[in-house]
Amino acid sequence: MPGLIQSVQRAAAILRLLATRSRPLGVAELANALGLPKTTVHGILRTLQHVGFVEQDPHSGRYRLGAALLHLGGSYLDGNELRTRALNWADALAARSGESVRIGTLHEGRVLVVHHVFRPDDSLQALDVGTLLPAHCTALGKVLLAYEPDPAGQLPTPLDAPAPAAITSPAALKRELAAVRRRGWALDAEESAPGILAVAAPIRDRRGITVGAIGVSGTVERLRAGGTLRADLVPHVRDAADSISRDLGFPDG
Amino acid sequence: MPGLIQSVQRAAAILRLLATRSRPLGVAELANALGLPKTTVHGILRTLQHVGFVEQDPHSGRYRLGAALLHLGGSYLDGNELRTRALNWADALAARSGESVRIGTLHEGRVLVVHHVFRPDDSLQALDVGTLLPAHCTALGKVLLAYEPDPAGQLPTPLDAPAPAAITSPAALKRELAAVRRRGWALDAEESAPGILAVAAPIRDRRGITVGAIGVSGTVERLRAGGTLRADLVPHVRDAADSISRDLGFPDG
Repeated sequence: MPGLIQSVQRAAAILRLLATRSRPLGVAELANALGLPKTTVHGILRTLQHVGFVEQDPHSGRYRLGAALLHLGGSYLDGNELRTRALNWADALAARSGESVRIGTLHEGRVLVVHHVFRPDDSLQALDVGTLLPAHCTALGKVLLAYEPDPAGQLPTPLDAPAPAAITSPAALKRELAAVRRRGWALDAEESAPGILAVAAPIRDRRGITVGAIGVSGTVERLRAGGTLRADLVPHVRDAADSISRDLGFPDG
Repeated sequence: MPGLIQSVQRAAAILRLLATRSRPLGVAELANALGLPKTTVHGILRTLQHVGFVEQDPHSGRYRLGAALLHLGGSYLDGNELRTRALNWADALAARSGESVRIGTLHEGRVLVVHHVFRPDDSLQALDVGTLLPAHCTALGKVLLAYEPDPAGQLPTPLDAPAPAAITSPAALKRELAAVRRRGWALDAEESAPGILAVAAPIRDRRGITVGAIGVSGTVERLRAGGTLRADLVPHVRDAADSISRDLGFPDG
């Protein structure tokens, strides 16, 4: 794309590459992966290190992401209007449903978790904020895809199946998204993980655009005791989604 | 510094500036703040937008941080060895003390919170991960400063007082840090916020370098009932810090 600054694009590519690997990478590995000369990559890495965006391991000389990015990520959250408006409603939804609550937005074909309220009990739970979830097999993702102009174009091919129940046929997913639009909410019936159910509904802004999704998730034992979905779940999730939408300026339906 | 790439440095400066403001900024504001021509700033912003590091508000045309940074921040956490090694010990400390636990590292003279375990009860608590806390008036910060070669050089002048009890004299802070080194733990006695106490201890790596601090914090009513610090608090915090240090390869003392 004309007008873009090459070294900034390359710096971003290095950061993304470091984010996808679980271990630090050396200059040569990064240069190979990006198809760039080692001297070019080294100059960018030195600059990124200087500004705190990468750190160099003192033993191996390899590079990993730096602490400044954590602070920038936190600042992104503070400035995220969707999240700010949704905080209280998400807490209320967790209290009413007794289950964990997540708010997500679509980011490069996946669901970026921007807020996560733990299930209100004493159990240890891992925070999901900043995690990217697959879109086609999660309730949050189905909601977000359902209101996208070209959902199929955003998804990986083939669609993977993290659990046996996941939808992997594009035609079946298209029918599922049409059903989500009709109903106004989405279900993940053990599609992202065996034994886990989730329900989500769309959050809309003043323009009527779906800017996020909010949902609850929990075990099949708790949410589908006796074979049917807990009756209060969908109303609770939709109420929370509608309340946040109203706060974002969406006219009442 | 020679060898650094100017456009990457400028891109980082724009991101930092956006992170410090609570509202989106326009091209002219950013250009003024950085002393750069508007065309230069605009080219960098377009590139940062292209890679998802900034987003442009559709109404105002102003810029704010982008969602890709949240994911990079999450990836930083996943790759942070201190945090990974500390997760279980932090959970155990929260369970034993009944109070919230934070782990921090020093970042540009402040404490970057890399892990936060909520107080184990049902109360609603805000997650602090990614937040920067002042160093001179927090227990975590005092621990981290105590083992720095030049603590005073890292701190803002004058030292601010978020609470009346905060130490603001450089000489008094120097004495306090010497006491922290002697004792091996630090106390925040309502110095960062009225009514809040905190205790922290150093986490050391295989080289013996203090790479982080772990601590608990809570209300004066719970932690200093009857006027004296709860007797089990310091041992619990030090045990957790020592256990993490051992996991990081620090030889037993």
